[in-house]
Amino acid sequence: MLPRGRPRALGAAALLLLLLLLGFLLFGGDLGCERRKRGGRAGAPGCFPGPLMPRVPPDGRLRRAAALDGDPGAGPGDHNRSDCGPPPPRPSKCELLHVAIVCAGHNSSRDVITLVKSMLFYRKNPLHLHLVTDAVARNILEMLFHTWMVPAVRVSFYNADELKSQVSWIPNKHYSGLYGLMKLVLPSALPTELAHVIVLDTDVTFASDISELWALFAHFSDTQVIGLVENQSDWYLGNLWKNHRPWPALGRGFNTGVILLRLDRLRQAGWEQMWRLTARRELLTLPATSLADQDIFNAVIKEHPGLVQPLPCVWNVQLSDHTLAERCYSAASDLKVIHWNSPKKLQVKNKHVEFFRNFYLTFLEYDGNLLRRELFGCPSQPPPGAEQLQQALAQLNEEDPCFEFRQQQLTVHRVHVTFLPHEPPPPRPHDVTLVAQLSMDRLQMLEALCRHWPGPMSLALYLTDAEAQQFLRFIEASPVLAARQDVAYHVVYREGPLYPVNQLRNVALAQALTPYVFLSDIDFLPAYSLYDYLRASIEQLGLGSQRKAALVVPAFETLHYRFSFPHSKVELLALLDVGALYTFRYHEWPRGHAPTDYARWREAQAPYRVQWAADYEPYVVVPRDCPRYDPRFVGFGWNKVAHIVELDAQEYELLVLPEAFTIHLPHAPSLDISRFRSSPTYRDCLQALKDEFHQDLSRHHGAAALKYLPALQQPQSPARD
Amino acid sequence: MLPRGRPRALGAAALLLLLLLLGFLLFGGDLGCERRKRGGRAGAPGCFPGPLMPRVPPDGRLRRAAALDGDPGAGPGDHNRSDCGPPPPRPSKCELLHVAIVCAGHNSSRDVITLVKSMLFYRKNPLHLHLVTDAVARNILEMLFHTWMVPAVRVSFYNADELKSQVSWIPNKHYSGLYGLMKLVLPSALPTELAHVIVLDTDVTFASDISELWALFAHFSDTQVIGLVENQSDWYLGNLWKNHRPWPALGRGFNTGVILLRLDRLRQAGWEQMWRLTARRELLTLPATSLADQDIFNAVIKEHPGLVQPLPCVWNVQLSDHTLAERCYSAASDLKVIHWNSPKKLQVKNKHVEFFRNFYLTFLEYDGNLLRRELFGCPSQPPPGAEQLQQALAQLNEEDPCFEFRQQQLTVHRVHVTFLPHEPPPPRPHDVTLVAQLSMDRLQMLEALCRHWPGPMSLALYLTDAEAQQFLRFIEASPVLAARQDVAYHVVYREGPLYPVNQLRNVALAQALTPYVFLSDIDFLPAYSLYDYLRASIEQLGLGSQRKAALVVPAFETLHYRFSFPHSKVELLALLDVGALYTFRYHEWPRGHAPTDYARWREAQAPYRVQWAADYEPYVVVPRDCPRYDPRFVGFGWNKVAHIVELDAQEYELLVLPEAFTIHLPHAPSLDISRFRSSPTYRDCLQALKDEFHQDLSRHHGAAALKYLPALQQPQSPARD
Repeated sequence: MLPRGRPRALGAAALLLLLLLLGFLLFGGDLGCERRKRGGRAGAPGCFPGPLMPRVPPDGRLRRAAALDGDPGAGPGDHNRSDCGPPPPRPSKCELLHVAIVCAGHNSSRDVITLVKSMLFYRKNPLHLHLVTDAVARNILEMLFHTWMVPAVRVSFYNADELKSQVSWIPNKHYSGLYGLMKLVLPSALPTELAHVIVLDTDVTFASDISELWALFAHFSDTQVIGLVENQSDWYLGNLWKNHRPWPALGRGFNTGVILLRLDRLRQAGWEQMWRLTARRELLTLPATSLADQDIFNAVIKEHPGLVQPLPCVWNVQLSDHTLAERCYSAASDLKVIHWNSPKKLQVKNKHVEFFRNFYLTFLEYDGNLLRRELFGCPSQPPPGAEQLQQALAQLNEEDPCFEFRQQQLTVHRVHVTFLPHEPPPPRPHDVTLVAQLSMDRLQMLEALCRHWPGPMSLALYLTDAEAQQFLRFIEASPVLAARQDVAYHVVYREGPLYPVNQLRNVALAQALTPYVFLSDIDFLPAYSLYDYLRASIEQLGLGSQRKAALVVPAFETLHYRFSFPHSKVELLALLDVGALYTFRYHEWPRGHAPTDYARWREAQAPYRVQWAADYEPYVVVPRDCPRYDPRFVGFGWNKVAHIVELDAQEYELLVLPEAFTIHLPHAPSLDISRFRSSPTYRDCLQALKDEFHQDLSRHHGAAALKYLPALQQPQSPARD
Repeated sequence: MLPRGRPRALGAAALLLLLLLLGFLLFGGDLGCERRKRGGRAGAPGCFPGPLMPRVPPDGRLRRAAALDGDPGAGPGDHNRSDCGPPPPRPSKCELLHVAIVCAGHNSSRDVITLVKSMLFYRKNPLHLHLVTDAVARNILEMLFHTWMVPAVRVSFYNADELKSQVSWIPNKHYSGLYGLMKLVLPSALPTELAHVIVLDTDVTFASDISELWALFAHFSDTQVIGLVENQSDWYLGNLWKNHRPWPALGRGFNTGVILLRLDRLRQAGWEQMWRLTARRELLTLPATSLADQDIFNAVIKEHPGLVQPLPCVWNVQLSDHTLAERCYSAASDLKVIHWNSPKKLQVKNKHVEFFRNFYLTFLEYDGNLLRRELFGCPSQPPPGAEQLQQALAQLNEEDPCFEFRQQQLTVHRVHVTFLPHEPPPPRPHDVTLVAQLSMDRLQMLEALCRHWPGPMSLALYLTDAEAQQFLRFIEASPVLAARQDVAYHVVYREGPLYPVNQLRNVALAQALTPYVFLSDIDFLPAYSLYDYLRASIEQLGLGSQRKAALVVPAFETLHYRFSFPHSKVELLALLDVGALYTFRYHEWPRGHAPTDYARWREAQAPYRVQWAADYEPYVVVPRDCPRYDPRFVGFGWNKVAHIVELDAQEYELLVLPEAFTIHLPHAPSLDISRFRSSPTYRDCLQALKDEFHQDLSRHHGAAALKYLPALQQPQSPARD
């Protein structure tokens, strides 16, 4: 409701002018501050950023432990609250904010994602993340951000291993290891055109908009280059125990979990030399750093106090066991950034830890898909692939009865590969990885699977963010699973109503690191000897090198979920004879495995070749570079069958192994099979997908694809899963 | 970091004084506004609340559609943004804020919870919710808030049915029905000591701290009583179609999804008479209200424009199909409250709907348990029961190997009864409700269960907030399930690592509305005739009235998950004879059902009495007031057995019904049973629970409990679920 008419407009203009003038007087700009600084007029109201900011005396030296001492009631907490003074100027609406994070390994990669979620939840600005990573973290985070497709977020990676030599000479006792020291070399590691950056530890959580933090750069004087929050423990006071000798620091020192870096000025000021000199000198009398980069930052600052701009303590609320953080915040509304800087992390003891933990869990379990929301109001380049995806989705017809299927096929799922620590298998020429996919309702299969398959596995898990945490706890609670470093778990985040079975298989397949893969399903337990037997067979048959073949592992099933697993083919045949085992889907869908020719298998002493036939869907071992599964098949039906058709079309021989077997355990029917059974639309859509699959097949294989036409046109039995 | 030393303190004091003075000059207070209002000095900068607030001309009349017309770029959006002016004064840190919501029925109750979650997520103040509800919503919300135990939230209920007569004379065409009109009578319905209240529709979502909205009360002039946001559609302009005759309004009128009410002044000003007079007069020429209370509020305001304080449009961003809301916000950071005021709700078409929908889904699926976080800094009375709970939890020993069990037993789960629309069964003296509990992995059982049991059911579902939404979609997608109004679903929200099986059973049992209950498990399908047969048997046996008995329904199992369900006892016996069916747990744990005496059942023509024996756990029919399950048994083991012990101890006869049967379908072992099998601690803890159970039993039943001692001391077989 704009004021209308001349008198009112004039009034408004006058008001605006007055506001501007007062704003300038009260809050100043760099200019105002500079003037004061040079003139040294401390105490004048001209250039302090208001009660929000801690004060630095005119000589640039920080008073010893000024922030955390004194009366807690009227203490620094009150001076850090955001409701007691004019807020600092915000960055302009669409200004790009830069954030740097050092991240190495599987566990830190998970932490970074939680941090990023909290940041994205509150952010209002485009962000550029600068991630200094080792190879493991890069592999994880590159895929994650690529599939996350968050608008207005750019990500650049920097090779931490290349920076190692710059810090590896520093003896360091902190749990963060060498990577903990890398924040020191950011001014040279980050692009020279980058002038400002916020540096974050992986164990911080945002409770506010990061642009408020970025705005604090405006309060730096001309000589200040590093913004830091005071340390909220007595560590640097050096009185924690007898002979406790911390590195030198001003008073309580500063915590480096959250840093504002003026990179341009640091480079000009010769930062690289400065910190090295200080570190070398201190290391003459001190054996090692205890707190990694933080010790060195503090030693440099002790020497050059003018470099530091102290930040309000709410921007790095430190939750260590004996934290003094409580003096900083007095209410939940004060918190801006929470820092889990105890090695105990969420298990730390603290009066308000329940509150902080809930806050952290909020983002840990937050559905990251929801953060794909557009940052509207700020034009930004869409993430790679996002535009094509939007177009494809826009072309779908909501009235199409198969709309759900088509939408599900197009869905780009967020993918977090190697969610848990994982050791890649040593390179062995005939090694084989078991590949499968599952969701929460099959977690209880994992222990048994580990007992049956002692080799590497690559498993895709279809989970929500919250379920991923349940999964993590499940693994940690199982000694069998926790001991296995050769099982790679890849989390594919849930989105949409249909189970994207073939997309999941492809994720697991793409992450298999051995030359061969055993394409299995989670409800099957392989023979105890299968891993060894397959490797021997691969070698013997020259699979991949001499022979383009898929090795068939015959499938059986038990109807009892407690049964005695056969230790040999002889035992298996005996169970088969007494009806304790059946060939797989013997009652419901024998066509699926009929070509395996179980009668011949009983007697076989050597691998034998079988011919493809309609609906054949054996479990096979193939070279890792085999065709991918067709992602159009989502939910129930035809997902494996289509893959075997493709193998046959590409002229893979089908060789049945005489000593191999795998056994299906009983389970309740999946939701998808229930839907398939009850919905004619579901069956019609599956037929439509099969038709389209055959069109593509004809396009690639020409007349050879004709062979598969009858198989594709026959109605699907509703009796399989 | 407090400034130290005299000169700096003086400087700071001077700064503060200057700020206060300028604040007063610039933003005024009630006093300032009043002065200007009376003097009519329009355009003077003295008393506008800054650019945040739309302007009202001095005569109190709102310019026609002032806010949404004109250049959208420089339009009202810019004037509503929070980053372009000083913020309004916040309420003091711990001020109690009052919120009123009218809510009726099952679906609105779900909506209210999402609204409340968004409000709690951002709130920094204690809240008092005033809920005007029908009996259904009250039943749901009372239980929900009671079990939610959110600190610093008080809830009062008001009976909507008692208010009906005050508005039922108004013909109304809006989809909200009679309840939509009830906002009009809040000044008399709410306690007289309540002076200010924020009134919300159930379809709004907060994107900011509600205290910012509350702060706008401070901008009311002495005569203003209602704060409202302008309507963001052209409805009231009356030009949407030919002969479109909306109710009278100032320009585009106001939207009543978010209202600030000065109740004290409304009462003084004779609001009750005022709106009735206006409504009666308009209804002489208009047939009915189209938009419920909103039409009447607008008609009153048209007559008395001085009553209204227009609020910034960001406090009610209206997402209807042809909304002009886009002119209001220009960036995500502007949004304060989102209003889904289209009947299409989330399916509304709108340029930014994807953003808004993600935002809504955030709270829809948000884990409400995380909102139990303490509002620290504000002392508040803990919710009922919270203190005892805290004490009990504090007494647990984290080193106790059974800590997890004990913690799980003490957990108060949030409970949302009748999550979906539900028709209570008509009162029938021998009616029986099937009672069971499940989690997501058993949803696929529901359709079959509905086919087998045509009577009422009370089912407890153990779900996360996100799963509850998946469940909702699952039901909506199933014609079989959507058609059943006699199945009550009660959501118990997940918390903790162990499945609280007996707590779930007790929730379902407490919500059963018939005189008898059939205590079943979700993996069982009852005989098609069981519902009728049970009712007949109850009548015949005089269960409850003449005879204190539990009727045993013999249990069987199939190992095939596709099998032909027997239509009679004869068919069942035939299947049993050919080995297609077994008596339940025949292979693994025959003791559980041995006392049922299947051999006798084969031949039985009449109900026969059996004696309790160790480990007996039959499925029984009992009067609704039967003993509750013992909630100490969580996870796997002894949960049903203990209940049968209690029935026997209370001298219930055990009568086996000759024609009744129920059949267990196969499923994979649950996670809990897997843990039980692999963990000796789990078994030890179960034994400890059994010992404690027996101590309690002895306390209640004295020497009679001795009978159960051997049963409680024998080791538990690991072979059951």
